[in-house]
Amino acid sequence: MGSMTAPAPLLETDRTKLRRAAGRGSFDRDLANSILDEAYIAHVGFVVDGTPRVLPMAYGRIGEDLYLHGAVGNAMLKASISAQVCVTVTLLDALVLARSAFHHSMNYRCVVLYGEALRVDDADEKRAALDAVVDQVVPGRSSEARPSNDQELRATLVLRLPIVEGSVKVRGHGVVDDPDDMELPVWAGLVPTVLTTSPPVQDEAQAGSGLTPPSPDRLVR
Amino acid sequence: MGSMTAPAPLLETDRTKLRRAAGRGSFDRDLANSILDEAYIAHVGFVVDGTPRVLPMAYGRIGEDLYLHGAVGNAMLKASISAQVCVTVTLLDALVLARSAFHHSMNYRCVVLYGEALRVDDADEKRAALDAVVDQVVPGRSSEARPSNDQELRATLVLRLPIVEGSVKVRGHGVVDDPDDMELPVWAGLVPTVLTTSPPVQDEAQAGSGLTPPSPDRLVR
Repeated sequence: MGSMTAPAPLLETDRTKLRRAAGRGSFDRDLANSILDEAYIAHVGFVVDGTPRVLPMAYGRIGEDLYLHGAVGNAMLKASISAQVCVTVTLLDALVLARSAFHHSMNYRCVVLYGEALRVDDADEKRAALDAVVDQVVPGRSSEARPSNDQELRATLVLRLPIVEGSVKVRGHGVVDDPDDMELPVWAGLVPTVLTTSPPVQDEAQAGSGLTPPSPDRLVR
Repeated sequence: MGSMTAPAPLLETDRTKLRRAAGRGSFDRDLANSILDEAYIAHVGFVVDGTPRVLPMAYGRIGEDLYLHGAVGNAMLKASISAQVCVTVTLLDALVLARSAFHHSMNYRCVVLYGEALRVDDADEKRAALDAVVDQVVPGRSSEARPSNDQELRATLVLRLPIVEGSVKVRGHGVVDDPDDMELPVWAGLVPTVLTTSPPVQDEAQAGSGLTPPSPDRLVR
């Protein structure tokens, strides 16, 4: 696709159709990608014996595919091969303090993806996927660290979820209180939240090496 | 229970049994509570038509019960009444940058709870639960804001998940690299992460009111 081609929107289906607060929802792929690229952790839902399981996982994105990984013995991942999963990535942006308890809320950006997770067997795709997972943590990091060797690759299960069926939901506005409450003597407003990093702490085994950590600009999302 | 009574641990079952990296896991209730009390968002898993759904939700804790809430018309919540849910709460503590791509990781604290979500019909319990959800955002906030009126209570569905079956998983240590990699000229260490708040931004409709936001110490977790 040429760079002038608008990306295909996420697919609206019965399970991605936005029902509650539909005004907060969209199927915009660029918006979905921006959320996926900013976060560190996905919450991945599986069904085991008919009951739900939700686990936090690292992930990486390459174009229109999202990749998960884990040890080949990981029971949850193994159970997800060719099974339906739900991958949800959420960023918290603000606490919303209203005059009424009822209108308290949070500002957030959230992507929910659905689909069949496919096992990645191709060695090149597997390497690229694992690089993406490392680069999700710090951009460019995969080209600095020792690459995975064949043994490590064999020990790793990689799943691909095509980013097709999904939706985005964003609350990004201020306090909404009832007209009757506007004059109440209760402070109302937003408390912005952001995930920040503190200065890197070097492995003591490396003390005196002169090696330097990734520059701060690479740690800002 | 007297304060000297140790809290009952979380229940180990087939689905909470820790398999991978079991050394990171525990069933310690105090640890679970500390994680639940520090976070803002839970990722709640449901099964609909046999497939998993995962949505971010606010929540509150009172003792050994966790509460979720939403509009009475919320299809996902309605479908969860007396159904199995999985509630996962995750805190990210650090990026773990190893010398090898393979040993990159994240430090985190995570609680995974399972059980049947029960609809709360008792008005007093419902009010207490909604207060807990507001106080989860800012401690003590429920006593400052206008309490919910009967109409708002009727419009709200509250679910209780007893905190019984679940587990905690924590990665809280430094970089672990292979012995052969220790001399590689690749910076290794932790990049601590923390969710921080910025100064509150008052609702413009309240400008000049002289009302003051919650003090900074109430916004620190």
